[in-house]
Amino acid sequence: MKQTIAAITNGVDVTRMHETIEAVKEAPEAGHFHFRIQNRWVNGGENLSEVRPFTAGSKLIRHKTKLILAADEPDVLLGNDNGANPVEHLLHALASCVTTSMVYHAAARGISIDQVESLLEGNIDLRGFLALDPNIRNGYQGIRVTLRIKANVSDEQFRELSSFGPKFSPVFDSLVRGVPVDVLAERI
Amino acid sequence: MKQTIAAITNGVDVTRMHETIEAVKEAPEAGHFHFRIQNRWVNGGENLSEVRPFTAGSKLIRHKTKLILAADEPDVLLGNDNGANPVEHLLHALASCVTTSMVYHAAARGISIDQVESLLEGNIDLRGFLALDPNIRNGYQGIRVTLRIKANVSDEQFRELSSFGPKFSPVFDSLVRGVPVDVLAERI
Repeated sequence: MKQTIAAITNGVDVTRMHETIEAVKEAPEAGHFHFRIQNRWVNGGENLSEVRPFTAGSKLIRHKTKLILAADEPDVLLGNDNGANPVEHLLHALASCVTTSMVYHAAARGISIDQVESLLEGNIDLRGFLALDPNIRNGYQGIRVTLRIKANVSDEQFRELSSFGPKFSPVFDSLVRGVPVDVLAERI
Repeated sequence: MKQTIAAITNGVDVTRMHETIEAVKEAPEAGHFHFRIQNRWVNGGENLSEVRPFTAGSKLIRHKTKLILAADEPDVLLGNDNGANPVEHLLHALASCVTTSMVYHAAARGISIDQVESLLEGNIDLRGFLALDPNIRNGYQGIRVTLRIKANVSDEQFRELSSFGPKFSPVFDSLVRGVPVDVLAERI
């Protein structure tokens, strides 16, 4: 009888993580992920996204619960403040991805982390969105991530730990290097 | 006695929108926005962001309610599926921003919209995140946005409407053109 004892580090099942790595090495198509969300405008600055099933390799996988994400604008940006606004959601996507990437890659290397917090800050000049100055971009001019980490590691390991987010995070990479986005529009 | 009648199009107060444009034209610093979120790791792939007060011009503004955004990974990515994952949040940020940018800029031009839906899809090859192939990026290889719009407009106006997201959306611009991200790390 074969027994497998799960090795959990940072809440991550490292045994399963290594199995995933081996599976993707053997069959790269197992690592092809296709994520989807469906958004519906409510009114003004308010809209809702439903996270749709995603594809992992050849499998279509449903989330265990219905995941609805709300967006709205605050009053000063003419909304009703019924949710974080799109650029705040972008900061959340980046924060969560940097943290998870660090936690997972630390687990894979046997580095135990006690605590992670981060503050994300970004500047936007509204003259871009309002098309008041063609030299001012619409998006973030820059984002600062301040990580606070508690881990019983050497200074060298701490620097390595801090590098995992920028080095491995899919959202960090998407934002820093840019992503091609195709937009199609059709009438209802 | 001066009376102002609010002109509402697409749920957007166009009178206030024009006042905002004039205010930012007169004093560009009024258009300087600084957004912040604070993230806290829970365990494994799970973490939570609290949206912090933001700065608009010289004013620090609190959201009317506490806004908490959850992130987790699905089971196949070794999480507990207690929330959308970071790359799904990124799609939501983009969807919500493209929709709101279109709705606002249509309102400013007096174009009335009845309905907007969008499907966002993106591909990620896990070999990037797992560092199995240095030629494969960690982030999205591409994102497709399919907008479905109901509006009583000419074909020319429909094309104009469809262009507003890519033309004005801060998240679209951030993602397509990239954003410099600084990461600092300190010990707790």
